[in-house]
Amino acid sequence: MALSLGQIVESLGGRLIGDPQHLIQKLAPLDTAQADALSFLSNPKYQSQLATTQAGCVIVSPAVADATDARTALIVAANPYHYFARLTQLWRQHTRVSDEPLVHPSAVIHPQAHVDATARIGPLCVVERGAHIGANTWLKSGVTVGEDCRIGERCIVHAGVVIGADGFGFALFEGRWEKIEQLGAVRIGNDVEIGANTCIDRGALDDTVIEDGVKLDNLVQIGHNVHVGANTAMAGCAGVAGSARIGANCTVGGGAVVLGHLQLADGVHISAASVVMRSIRQPGQYSGVFPIDDNASWEKNAATLRQLHRLRDRIKSLESALESQKK
Amino acid sequence: MALSLGQIVESLGGRLIGDPQHLIQKLAPLDTAQADALSFLSNPKYQSQLATTQAGCVIVSPAVADATDARTALIVAANPYHYFARLTQLWRQHTRVSDEPLVHPSAVIHPQAHVDATARIGPLCVVERGAHIGANTWLKSGVTVGEDCRIGERCIVHAGVVIGADGFGFALFEGRWEKIEQLGAVRIGNDVEIGANTCIDRGALDDTVIEDGVKLDNLVQIGHNVHVGANTAMAGCAGVAGSARIGANCTVGGGAVVLGHLQLADGVHISAASVVMRSIRQPGQYSGVFPIDDNASWEKNAATLRQLHRLRDRIKSLESALESQKK
Amino acid sequence: MALSLGQIVESLGGRLIGDPQHLIQKLAPLDTAQADALSFLSNPKYQSQLATTQAGCVIVSPAVADATDARTALIVAANPYHYFARLTQLWRQHTRVSDEPLVHPSAVIHPQAHVDATARIGPLCVVERGAHIGANTWLKSGVTVGEDCRIGERCIVHAGVVIGADGFGFALFEGRWEKIEQLGAVRIGNDVEIGANTCIDRGALDDTVIEDGVKLDNLVQIGHNVHVGANTAMAGCAGVAGSARIGANCTVGGGAVVLGHLQLADGVHISAASVVMRSIRQPGQYSGVFPIDDNASWEKNAATLRQLHRLRDRIKSLESALESQKK
Repeated sequence: MALSLGQIVESLGGRLIGDPQHLIQKLAPLDTAQADALSFLSNPKYQSQLATTQAGCVIVSPAVADATDARTALIVAANPYHYFARLTQLWRQHTRVSDEPLVHPSAVIHPQAHVDATARIGPLCVVERGAHIGANTWLKSGVTVGEDCRIGERCIVHAGVVIGADGFGFALFEGRWEKIEQLGAVRIGNDVEIGANTCIDRGALDDTVIEDGVKLDNLVQIGHNVHVGANTAMAGCAGVAGSARIGANCTVGGGAVVLGHLQLADGVHISAASVVMRSIRQPGQYSGVFPIDDNASWEKNAATLRQLHRLRDRIKSLESALESQKK
Repeated sequence: MALSLGQIVESLGGRLIGDPQHLIQKLAPLDTAQADALSFLSNPKYQSQLATTQAGCVIVSPAVADATDARTALIVAANPYHYFARLTQLWRQHTRVSDEPLVHPSAVIHPQAHVDATARIGPLCVVERGAHIGANTWLKSGVTVGEDCRIGERCIVHAGVVIGADGFGFALFEGRWEKIEQLGAVRIGNDVEIGANTCIDRGALDDTVIEDGVKLDNLVQIGHNVHVGANTAMAGCAGVAGSARIGANCTVGGGAVVLGHLQLADGVHISAASVVMRSIRQPGQYSGVFPIDDNASWEKNAATLRQLHRLRDRIKSLESALESQKK
Repeated sequence: MALSLGQIVESLGGRLIGDPQHLIQKLAPLDTAQADALSFLSNPKYQSQLATTQAGCVIVSPAVADATDARTALIVAANPYHYFARLTQLWRQHTRVSDEPLVHPSAVIHPQAHVDATARIGPLCVVERGAHIGANTWLKSGVTVGEDCRIGERCIVHAGVVIGADGFGFALFEGRWEKIEQLGAVRIGNDVEIGANTCIDRGALDDTVIEDGVKLDNLVQIGHNVHVGANTAMAGCAGVAGSARIGANCTVGGGAVVLGHLQLADGVHISAASVVMRSIRQPGQYSGVFPIDDNASWEKNAATLRQLHRLRDRIKSLESALESQKK
C-alpha cells in the first residue's frame, strides 16, 4: 500500500510543497516517522520538531508553513488535525479488504428486524425483532441490538455492545424488588460511534435517546431514559444514571459518573473520574477528584478531611477570640 | 395492543373510579400521558400534576384519591408504584410475542450442563459443562455460564454477562505472577437479575455466592468468593473486590467500589461512586465523593487539600498561641 | 478426584511431615478445611489457626514448621503461597476434562488469521484477518481478536474480551467529530491473562502494547497506544487512557484511572479507585480517595471542602494577626 503525495492532495485538497511523486507507505507520529511516512503538526508547541523530523512529508498550517525552513515536504492545510483525520480515512479506504458479505452468516437476525441493504452486520451479532439498522451502519462482532431499538445511518458499533437491555427498574415492596418491565426502546441517531462492551439500556416507558454525532468510548453505561445531546463525547468507563439529560457538545471524561435525573447544559465538560451530583446549568469545565499523593501523605490528609467541618469551627473560634481581644 | 380499565383491575386488583370500558393503549409518565394512556402517582410531591394531566387514568393511593377532585379516571391502590410495576408486567405479558424456541439453536450448551425444561436460553449463549440453569430462568443473548456454575429459578441474565470467569488470583514469586487456578464456582439464587456485560467470577476454593432476589445492573464486577446477601441491589459499574461480604437489603450506588475482604452489615447503603475501604457494621447511608465544582475552584481546593494535615497543625499552633496569651 | 500427599510432594517437591498415603480430595481455606482437605498458611498472622484446623494437611514455611506442635500433617515449602498456587495448577490438571476440540466449531476464524496448532479457541470467538494467536494460548468464549492483533504464548483470555476495537480518536471540526481511523493494532506478549469483558483498543498509528506476564482483571479499559510493562497487574474496572505508559511490575487497584499521555515508573502501585493525573516517576504506593463516612458527616465535610482554599486564607490571616500582636 502506497500513495504518492500527489494522489493525496488530489483526494483531500491542501497545498503541496514538495515532490508529488514521493511515495508514502505509512502514517506515523512526527518523532518516529521516516522518509516513507507522512506525519502532521497540529500543536504549534511541537513546531521545533519540524527541524529534526525524518518524515517524508508533514501536514502543517499556513502559519507554520510560512515560519519554517524545514526541508521536508509539506502539505499546507487550514486545519492540519482535521486533514490528518481525513487522511486516515483515505488510508483505511485503500487498505481495507472487504471480501466478507455485508451480513455475516453467523449473525442472528430476526426476520422482523429491518436491516438496511447497505448496513454491515458482523459475526455473531444479534438483531432482535423490530430492531432497525440504518444505511451504512456497521455492527462489528458480537453486538446485540434489542427489540424495537433503532440505529441511524453511518453508525459504528464496536464488539460486545449491548443496546436495549432492560433498564434497572424495580419497585421495593415488602423488602423485595418487584420488576418494572422496561417498555421503552433505544433510539440512536446518525453518525454515532459506540465503543466495545458499552451498554445502552432501553427506557422504562419512553425511549432512551442518543442524538446524532454522539461518540461513546468502551465500557460506558447509559441508563434508561437518558438523553444524550448531539455531538457529545464520553470517554471509557463513564456512567450515566437513569433519566439524566446531557446537553449537546458536552464531553464526559473517563470513569466520570452522572447521577440520575440530572441535567447538563450544552457545552458542559466533566473531567475524568468526576461525579456529577447536581444539575449543571452553565457551560464550562467541571472537576471533582481527590488529588493523588504518596500513600502516607494521602492517609494523613484523608484522616484530617474527615474532621474538616470541625476544623472550620476551630478557625471560627480563633477568629472570634482574636476579635474579642481587639475590643 | 389495548386493555380496558376493567380488564386491568380484574387482573391486578385495585378500586377503579371511572369507566371500565375505557381503553388503555400505553403506559406513560404523568406529564406526557394522553387519553389512551395509564399513568401513576407515587410521590405526593407531584400531586398537583393530577389537576393538569391528560392521562386517561392514574394509579393513586387512597389518600390521594380522597384529596383530589381530578376528573381523570383513577385506580386506587395501597402502593401505586408497586401496582404500576405489576402493571408493566401484565403489559409485557400481553405484548411479548414468543415465537422463538426456548433454547435458541445458536446457543452452545454442553451435553453435561443441566438446563431446566422451562428455562429460556437466547442466541449465542454458552453454557459449560456441569452448569445448572434453573426453572423459568432466562439467559438473553451472548451470556456465558462457566463450568459448574448454578443459577436458580426465575432469574433474568442480560446480554453479554459472564458468570464464572476465573477470579483474579496470582501468587507473586520472584517478580512474576503464578496463577492460582480458581477451583470454586458461582452459585446464584432465585429471582436474581443481572445486567448486561456484568461479570461474576468463580471462587478460588469455595464458591462465589449471590443470594435470592439480588439485582445487579450493567457492567458490575463481582470478584471471587464475594457473598452478596438477599435482595441487595447494585447499580451500574459498581465493583466488589474478592472475598467481600455484602449483607442483605443493601444498595450499592453506581460506580461505587467495595474493597476486598470487607464486610457490610445488612441494610447498608453506599452512595454512588463512593469507595468502601473498611468494614461497615451499622446500617445506614455512607458516602465519600469529592464534590464537583468549576474546574478553577476545584484546582485551588484540591491543591490545598494536599496540605490539609499541615493546615491542621497550623490551627493547633494558633490555638496554642492564643492559649498562652491568656496565661 | 483424589491425590495422596505422597503424590503431591512427588509432583511439586516440599518436605512432607505426615502419612504419604493420606488422600486429599479437595483444597480448602484453613478455617473450613476437613480431614480430606489440604490447606496452606502463608501469613504468619494466622499461625494460631494451625492448632485448631481440621485440615488433613497444611502447607507451611520452614519457620512455621519448626515453631508448631500441630498434629496435622504438614508440607514444608520455602514459599507456601507459591507452593499452593502450583498445587491449584496440579489440581486443575487432574480435574479438567478436555473432550472438546481445540478450536470450537462455532468460532469464526478468518482464513487469513494465524492460530497456532496448540492454541485453544472457545465457542463463539471471532479471530479476524491477520490476527495471530500464539502457542498454548486459550481464548475462552465470545472473545474478539481484531485485525492484525497479536497474542503471544500461554495467554489466557476470558469470555467477552475485545482486543483491537478502534481507539477513541476524533478530530473536532466545526462542532462535529471527524473519525481518525485507527491504523495500529494490539501486541500482547507471553503469559498474559485478560479478564472477562476487558477491552484493549488498537493504536491510532503505532500499536498498543501489553508486555509479557501482564495480568488484567475483568472490565478493564486500555486505551489506544497504551504501553503496559512486564508483570504489571490491574484489578477490575481499572481504566488507562490513551498513550499512557505504565512501567513494569506495577499494580493498579480496582476502579483506578490513569489519564492519557502520563508515565508511571516501574514499581508504581496505585490504590483502588485512585485517579492518576500526573506522571509518577518514583516507585511506591500512591492513593487519592475521598474517605467514606456516614452520609451526614460526609455532607458537612464535603461542603466545607468546597471552601477549603478560603479556609487556608483565613488561617493565614489569623497567623498574620497574631504575628502583628507580638510586634
